[in-house]
Amino acid sequence: MDYRPINLSQKFERFDDRWSPRVVAEMNDVQFKIAKIEGEFIWHAHEDTDEVFIVVAGRMVIEFRDGCVELGPGEMFVVPRGVEHRPIAESECRIMLVEPRGVVNTGAAGGDYTAPNDVWV
Amino acid sequence: MDYRPINLSQKFERFDDRWSPRVVAEMNDVQFKIAKIEGEFIWHAHEDTDEVFIVVAGRMVIEFRDGCVELGPGEMFVVPRGVEHRPIAESECRIMLVEPRGVVNTGAAGGDYTAPNDVWV
Repeated sequence: MDYRPINLSQKFERFDDRWSPRVVAEMNDVQFKIAKIEGEFIWHAHEDTDEVFIVVAGRMVIEFRDGCVELGPGEMFVVPRGVEHRPIAESECRIMLVEPRGVVNTGAAGGDYTAPNDVWV
Repeated sequence: MDYRPINLSQKFERFDDRWSPRVVAEMNDVQFKIAKIEGEFIWHAHEDTDEVFIVVAGRMVIEFRDGCVELGPGEMFVVPRGVEHRPIAESECRIMLVEPRGVVNTGAAGGDYTAPNDVWV
């Protein structure tokens, strides 16, 4: 059989919109998504799940109501379920998100930044 | 509050044994583990779960009974549940594994390569 690696750099080249996660892999019911982010996202939370951010390239900040964490390449952070957060990137940042299938990027907050769910690249 | 990034390079510096995954993060019941691998592992399968390999540095091959996949930095692969596989790295390779809490590195195969489970770094 012909097994193929999932190459993240190649996947990132296939889209350019910001704040619109694309699924690249699934493990059981967990999805691995990549996204290009730039600017300030909205405050939101995911009531039913933790959410993992892994920075592939660039830098980002995740703001919380009581602090923040800055992430660079090769750094990750787990936002606990139910915790309000707001991702920010001064310039283009490439990230991988890991979370269960079905998680919407804006949580229950909705609004213009809400991206279509379960879009593969 | 003081939020800290999980820095993979720093975590990798804290151990040097091969084939002995260390947990760096948890999302719900899913663990993110890092490992240094070198040489040939044993054939094994995980009957109850898919298993994700992400290469951070170096190169590795995952052999299957009917083929293989070679992975370099920034590449990943999902080994489906129940599928026999054997990881190989000619020289030191640094990987991240993503799988549910409780998965043993040798599956049901056992043997000398079986590492302690749920060891954090």
